[in-house]
Amino acid sequence: MYRTKNCGELRMQHAGEQVTLAGWVQTVRKFGSITFTDLRDRYGITQLLFNEALNAELDKTPLGREFVLQVTGKVIERSSKNSKIPTGDIEVEVTQFTILNASDVPPFTIEENTDGGDELRMKYRYLDLRRPTLRRNLELRYKVNRSVRNYLDTLGFWDIETPFLIKSTPEGARDFVVPSRMNQGEFYALPQSPQTFKQLLMVSGYDRYYQIVKCFRDEDLRADRQPEFTQVDCEMSFVEQEDILNTFEGLFKHVFKDVKGVEITEAFPRMTFDDAMWHYGNDKPDIRFEMKIQNLKATGNVHCATLNGVDFKVFNEAETILAIAVPGTSDYTRKQIDELTEWVKRPQIGMTGVINIKCNADGTLKSSVDKFFNEAQLKEVATFCGANAGDMILVLAGAETRTRKAMSELRLEMGNRLGLRDHDVYKPLWVIDFPLFELDEENNRWVARHHPFTSPKPEHIELMKDLSRYAEIKANAYDIVLNGTEIGGGSIRIHQRDLQEKMFAALGMSKEEAQEKFGFLLGAFEYGAPPHGGIAFGFDRLCALLGGQETIRDFIAFPKNNSGRDVMLDAPSAIDDSQLKELGLEVKA
Amino acid sequence: MYRTKNCGELRMQHAGEQVTLAGWVQTVRKFGSITFTDLRDRYGITQLLFNEALNAELDKTPLGREFVLQVTGKVIERSSKNSKIPTGDIEVEVTQFTILNASDVPPFTIEENTDGGDELRMKYRYLDLRRPTLRRNLELRYKVNRSVRNYLDTLGFWDIETPFLIKSTPEGARDFVVPSRMNQGEFYALPQSPQTFKQLLMVSGYDRYYQIVKCFRDEDLRADRQPEFTQVDCEMSFVEQEDILNTFEGLFKHVFKDVKGVEITEAFPRMTFDDAMWHYGNDKPDIRFEMKIQNLKATGNVHCATLNGVDFKVFNEAETILAIAVPGTSDYTRKQIDELTEWVKRPQIGMTGVINIKCNADGTLKSSVDKFFNEAQLKEVATFCGANAGDMILVLAGAETRTRKAMSELRLEMGNRLGLRDHDVYKPLWVIDFPLFELDEENNRWVARHHPFTSPKPEHIELMKDLSRYAEIKANAYDIVLNGTEIGGGSIRIHQRDLQEKMFAALGMSKEEAQEKFGFLLGAFEYGAPPHGGIAFGFDRLCALLGGQETIRDFIAFPKNNSGRDVMLDAPSAIDDSQLKELGLEVKA
Repeated sequence: MYRTKNCGELRMQHAGEQVTLAGWVQTVRKFGSITFTDLRDRYGITQLLFNEALNAELDKTPLGREFVLQVTGKVIERSSKNSKIPTGDIEVEVTQFTILNASDVPPFTIEENTDGGDELRMKYRYLDLRRPTLRRNLELRYKVNRSVRNYLDTLGFWDIETPFLIKSTPEGARDFVVPSRMNQGEFYALPQSPQTFKQLLMVSGYDRYYQIVKCFRDEDLRADRQPEFTQVDCEMSFVEQEDILNTFEGLFKHVFKDVKGVEITEAFPRMTFDDAMWHYGNDKPDIRFEMKIQNLKATGNVHCATLNGVDFKVFNEAETILAIAVPGTSDYTRKQIDELTEWVKRPQIGMTGVINIKCNADGTLKSSVDKFFNEAQLKEVATFCGANAGDMILVLAGAETRTRKAMSELRLEMGNRLGLRDHDVYKPLWVIDFPLFELDEENNRWVARHHPFTSPKPEHIELMKDLSRYAEIKANAYDIVLNGTEIGGGSIRIHQRDLQEKMFAALGMSKEEAQEKFGFLLGAFEYGAPPHGGIAFGFDRLCALLGGQETIRDFIAFPKNNSGRDVMLDAPSAIDDSQLKELGLEVKA
Repeated sequence: MYRTKNCGELRMQHAGEQVTLAGWVQTVRKFGSITFTDLRDRYGITQLLFNEALNAELDKTPLGREFVLQVTGKVIERSSKNSKIPTGDIEVEVTQFTILNASDVPPFTIEENTDGGDELRMKYRYLDLRRPTLRRNLELRYKVNRSVRNYLDTLGFWDIETPFLIKSTPEGARDFVVPSRMNQGEFYALPQSPQTFKQLLMVSGYDRYYQIVKCFRDEDLRADRQPEFTQVDCEMSFVEQEDILNTFEGLFKHVFKDVKGVEITEAFPRMTFDDAMWHYGNDKPDIRFEMKIQNLKATGNVHCATLNGVDFKVFNEAETILAIAVPGTSDYTRKQIDELTEWVKRPQIGMTGVINIKCNADGTLKSSVDKFFNEAQLKEVATFCGANAGDMILVLAGAETRTRKAMSELRLEMGNRLGLRDHDVYKPLWVIDFPLFELDEENNRWVARHHPFTSPKPEHIELMKDLSRYAEIKANAYDIVLNGTEIGGGSIRIHQRDLQEKMFAALGMSKEEAQEKFGFLLGAFEYGAPPHGGIAFGFDRLCALLGGQETIRDFIAFPKNNSGRDVMLDAPSAIDDSQLKELGLEVKA
C-alpha cells in the first residue's frame, strides 16, 4: 500500500502519529520558508506542511496542481483550524515525499465550479470526474443502487441477468442492431428493456425478479436523453396492481430514508390519468404546489356557466378555456404581464396570448378582457376558479390538446416563479388507470400507450372489438411520478395467449408477424403462465432527482453528447474494411 | 395477492390455519374418491388433498401437469409424513380452487432429470428453467452476486457503471460492432471488458471501483464459451500486487463461506508461472492432488542422470521427457494400459504412445521399456520420480510444448480416474509472475499475454529494448485458479505515458495507431495518474465451479448455443430493409 491513512480520516485523536498519505495536489501555498499543500483523494482533503528543510527540495522539484504525491509525516494540531472540512483540526508535517506522477496543467480548474465549457469537460471527462460535484453524484448513484438492492433482496427478489444480444422486434423506438459474423447477413438487437425476458422468468416460476440493467434506444436525442440508459427492472408473480404499488411505494420510502434521510410516512397519493390531465394538464403532475387547472370550458363543453352569457368571440370559438389562480401576483406590472404573453407565444407553447384577471387586495377585479365581462361575470369566473384576493387568474383558450399542454407548462412556470418547486421537497404520487391505447396521429393508428404486454382492465376487454371505443379502454397500468417527473411505470401483464393475440391484432400486427416476432412469448403462455406484473424505473433520472439536479448526464460516469457521440473516445468511428468484410457488410456512400 | 402463503413455508405449527396458495401442478394422483396434488412454486412443494366433494369438480375440469392453480383450504397434519421435503408433515385440505391458467403437456418432463434433449430444452428455455437444478443454479448465481457485492461494499468499493457503446479497438479478440444511424458509416463497439474505463476512473480518483458487468467477444465459440459473458471487474489505486492479492483472497474466502459454508483459513498458495508450467504443465494447476510432473528431460536438458546411460532412440531424440507417478495403479491390466495408449493418441493429445513403469507392491519394477533399461536404471528413474510401491510411472516423450501439454492432460485424466478431483473440495491458488509477452506463432509476432495495459516488472523494463529477450520479461500479473480452472486474473497497470507508449510500440503499434486507438488513455496519464491495479473474474465460470458443475450454460438464464444463436428467440435474424437503409448499410450477397 502506498498509504497508511486516506486524506479524509485524520482527526485530533491521531495527533502525534506517523502516517503516509497519497493523493492529488489541490493547492500549493508558499509562505516564506514553508509551504502548505492540500492533498486530495476520494475521501477528503488533508493539509500538508513542508517545513524549511523540505522546502529546499520543493524548490528543485516544484509541485503542480494535480500532481500525484505520496508523503510521510507526523499528524500535528493546526495553529489555525478550518471548521469547513472534517480534517480541519490537524495537518501533516511532512518528513518525506515522493512525486508518484506529475501532471500537466489541467485544461480547466478541478473545483466545485469550474471554468471549463461543456465540450472541453466531456473530452477530458476523467478530469471533470475529479470535481467534487461529479464525485458526489456518482457516490449518490452508487448509494441508491445499493439501497434499491438491499430493499429488494430483503423481499426475496432475485437479481437475474437477461441477455444483451437479442432479436430485433422494433415497436415504437428503434433498436440498435449488432451484425453477426457467424451468421452473416443476420443481426442481433440490443434490448430496449428486458420486458419479455422478465415475463418469461415469471412463466418459469422465478416469482420475484429484479435487475439494474443497461437498456438501449436508437432515438433522435432530445436534450438529456442518452442512447444507453439504466433501468431498475422488476417483476412479480401472483400479484394484483395493489400489491405492486405497495411493494414499490415501500422501495421509494426506503431509498428516500436511506439516501436522503427523508422519512415519508403517509401513503403516496393516487390519481387517475383522467384526473391528472383534467387538473394538471399532464400525466406527471407536480403536486409540490396546488394551483390546479380550472376547466372553464373543456372539449367544447362549458363548465363555468357565466361564459354562456358573454359575447367574446375568442371564448365562444375556443374548444377549451383553462385557468389557474396564481397566488400573490395581482400586483404584476404591465411589463411582467407582457413578459408572460411573450412566454406563452414561444413556439414550444404556441398560444396567441394569455388573459389575466387580477383579484385585487381591496376586493376589486381588473381584467385584460374588461370589454367583454362585467364585474359580476368576472366575480363568477373568479369564484369558479377558487381565486382569493391577491391572486391573478391566467386564462388560456384554444384547441383542447394544445391549450391543455400550454396551461400545464404555464402552471409549472408560475410555480417556478413563485419558488414553489423546491428540490428538497419530495412529493411522489401514483398515476393510475392509464389508457391502454393512444392514437399515433402521424400514422393514424392506435399504438400501445405503455407496451403491447400491458393488460387491459378486465371489464374493458370487450371494447377491444370496437375500434371506435379504443380511447375508452383503460389499462392496469401505473406510473410513479416525483416532483413533476415520471420516474417509473409498469403494469399488470397479459398472461393468456388469446388475449395477447387480441392485443397484437388490435395494434395492427398480422398473425404471422406476431408469431415471427413474439412466438416465444405466445408459446410460453401455453405452458402455465401465472398472473404477473411489474415496474421499471429510470435509474439515471431517479438519481438526478435525488441529487436535486436536472441533467442525467451529470449522474453518468461516461455519457454521450447530444449527437450520441462519446467525445472522449471519439466514438462511434469508422471500422476496418476487414471487419466489415467479415460481417458481410458494405457501407453505402 | 393471489396467496397468503407460499408452497415452501407451511409446517406443523400452521395446522388448523386457513391458507391460500398459488403455484404449478407438479403431479396429480387419484385414489378412489380423493385426489392428491403436489403444488410447486419457487419456494417449495406442498401436498394438496381434494376430498370427495371437490373431486367431482375435478372430474369436470381435470388438472394437468404445469397448470397454474390457486387453492384455499385448511392446513392439516399428514397421515403419512414425507421427511424428504420441508413441508412433508402437512398437507392442505382444499375447500376451493381456481385454475388460473391451463397448460399444454410440456415437451419434456419438468423434473430433476429430464427426458428432454439439449436443443429442445434450449428452445423451451422457460420450461427448462422450471427444473430444480436450473432453479438452484440461478439462485446460487444470485447469492454469489450478492455475496461479492457485500464484501466489496464493506471495503469501500463503489459500483460505477461504464458504457456499452464504445470505440472499436480490436486487440486480440474481435469486437461486436453496432452501426450508428445518427453518424452513418460509423460504428460503436461493445466492450470486451471495461478495462480502460476502470483505469480512467482511477485517474479520476475513484480509488476503489467494481462492477458486475456484461462483456462481449465475437470469437468462434469453443464448447462452453458465450459471446456475452459476465465479469466481476475491480480496480484499486495506490496499491501494489500484494494488496490486491490480499484483498481478493479475502473476497474468495468470504464467498466460499457465505455461499458454500466452506471456511478456508490458510493463505492461498502462490506459485510462479514458471513453477506451474514445470510441475503441472499448465498455468492453472489443479492442486487438489499432487502427482506433480517429473522433468526427466526438459527443453533438451537431461535432469534425470540415468537417462544418459540408456540407449533408447525415442528418449535420446526427444526434446522433453516427462513422467508422473500415479498411486495405486501398478496393477493396471494390459487392457487398461492399451486404453491409456489410445487416450494419449487422440488428436487432442497427439502423442504416439505412453511408456509405463510399474512399481510393484513387492518392490520389483516392470516396464514397457524393459528392453532398454536394466532394473537399476529403472529404480533410479523411479527414485527421481519419487514413486512408491504400488505406483505406476507414466512417461511421455517428444517436443517440449506438445509433450508438456499432453502430460498436463494425462495428469488430470489420472486424477479423474482415481477420484482425486472432488467437486466439493476447493483448492484455490494464485499463479504469479506471468510473462509480459507471448509469441503469436501464427503471425510470428509478440502479443500481450494479459493485455497491453499490464505493467512489466520494473527491473525488466530495460529488456523491452531487446526483442530477443522479450520471453524473459515478467509482468506484475496474476491469476486466481480454482481446481484447475482460471477464474480470474489481473495486473498492476502501467500508469506512465512513456511506458505505455513503449508497450504499444513493443506490440508493433505505430505512434499514430496508438494515438488513434488509445489517445484518451495516453492523455489521461499526463494529468496525474496514480499507481493502480486490479482484477477481473469470470462470473459465469465462478458460479459453475461453486455449483460443482462444468458448463457455464446451466448458470445463465438465457444462453446462446454453440453457434451463437438464441434458439428460443431465433436470434440473430434478418432485419427490415428500412432498418438497413437508415443505417446506410448493405448486406453483401
